[in-house]
Amino acid sequence: MRYVSFVDEPTMAPDDFFMTEAIKEAKLALSLDEVPIGAIIVSNGKIIGRGHNLTEKLNDVTAHAEMQAFTAAANYLGGKYLKDCTLYVTIEPCVMCAGASYWTQISRIVYGAPDVQRGFRRINHNILHPKTEIIGGIKELECGSLVKDFFLSKRNKT
Amino acid sequence: MRYVSFVDEPTMAPDDFFMTEAIKEAKLALSLDEVPIGAIIVSNGKIIGRGHNLTEKLNDVTAHAEMQAFTAAANYLGGKYLKDCTLYVTIEPCVMCAGASYWTQISRIVYGAPDVQRGFRRINHNILHPKTEIIGGIKELECGSLVKDFFLSKRNKT
Repeated sequence: MRYVSFVDEPTMAPDDFFMTEAIKEAKLALSLDEVPIGAIIVSNGKIIGRGHNLTEKLNDVTAHAEMQAFTAAANYLGGKYLKDCTLYVTIEPCVMCAGASYWTQISRIVYGAPDVQRGFRRINHNILHPKTEIIGGIKELECGSLVKDFFLSKRNKT
Repeated sequence: MRYVSFVDEPTMAPDDFFMTEAIKEAKLALSLDEVPIGAIIVSNGKIIGRGHNLTEKLNDVTAHAEMQAFTAAANYLGGKYLKDCTLYVTIEPCVMCAGASYWTQISRIVYGAPDVQRGFRRINHNILHPKTEIIGGIKELECGSLVKDFFLSKRNKT
C-alpha cells in the first residue's frame, strides 16, 4: 500500500487532492474489469487505507471499495474505530457500506457522484453514525463518468 | 468447515435445526470473548457457509457473522449470488449485513432474537432485496439470552 500525505502537494484543495487518490483506486478496479469505484481513508492528512471494488474478482458482494478501505485503515491503526478519519469514495456508498461506516464511527464521508439507484440516501439518512458528516459532489463528473462509461462499454459489447 | 445436512436429523423442524447450528457458531464467538452471534447459509438443506462474530479478534467492524457466512457460501458456490439460499442468524441483522444481503439476492433470512437498537428494521424494511423473505423469532429466547448474558457478565466485571 502506498501511503500518500497531503503535505506532498499542498496546492490543491484537500478534498480534491484526496478524491484524486480515490479515483486512482477506481481506475485500478477498471483495469481489472470491475465496476470502477475507489476509496481511501485519511487520518491527519495521511492516507491510511485504500480499496477498490473487487466483487467480480473475489466472487464476493461484500468486496466493495469502502469495505476494503475500512479494513485496511483499521489494520493500520490497530483499532477498529476510525473516529478522526475521512472516507473518500468516488460513488455515494450503498446501504451496506454506509452501515459499515456506522460501526467505524468515522468522522466524515466525502463522495464524488451520487448513486440514485443504490446509494444509501434512497433509504434513510439515519443510517450514518450521528457524528459522521457527509458531503458529496467532489469531482462528481469524473467519478460518475468512470462508472457510466464502464456500463456503456459493457452494453455496447453485448 | 463442517458441512451439515438436514437429512441427518429429520426429526426437528428445519428452521429449528438450522438455527441450532447458527447458535453453535454464536457459542464459538463466545468462547473467543466476542459478542456471541452466529450465522449459517443453507442451500437445498445443506449448510454451505458458516460464520461467527470476530470484530474484536480481527479489529474489524465488518467481521460480523453474516458477512463471513456470505463470503464462505459464495466461495463454496463459486458465484456471488445466493438466490436459492437461506441465512440463519441468531440476532436480527444490522444495516450493514442487511445491505450485504441485498447484494446477494438471498431468498430467505431467518433470525432468532430481534435487535431493537441496531437491527436493520429500525431504519426501513426496504433495505432487503424485494425477493428476500424474512422471518424472526426462531429460538428467540436462546439466541437473545446468549447476547444479554454476555453483556451482563461484562458489566459485572467492571
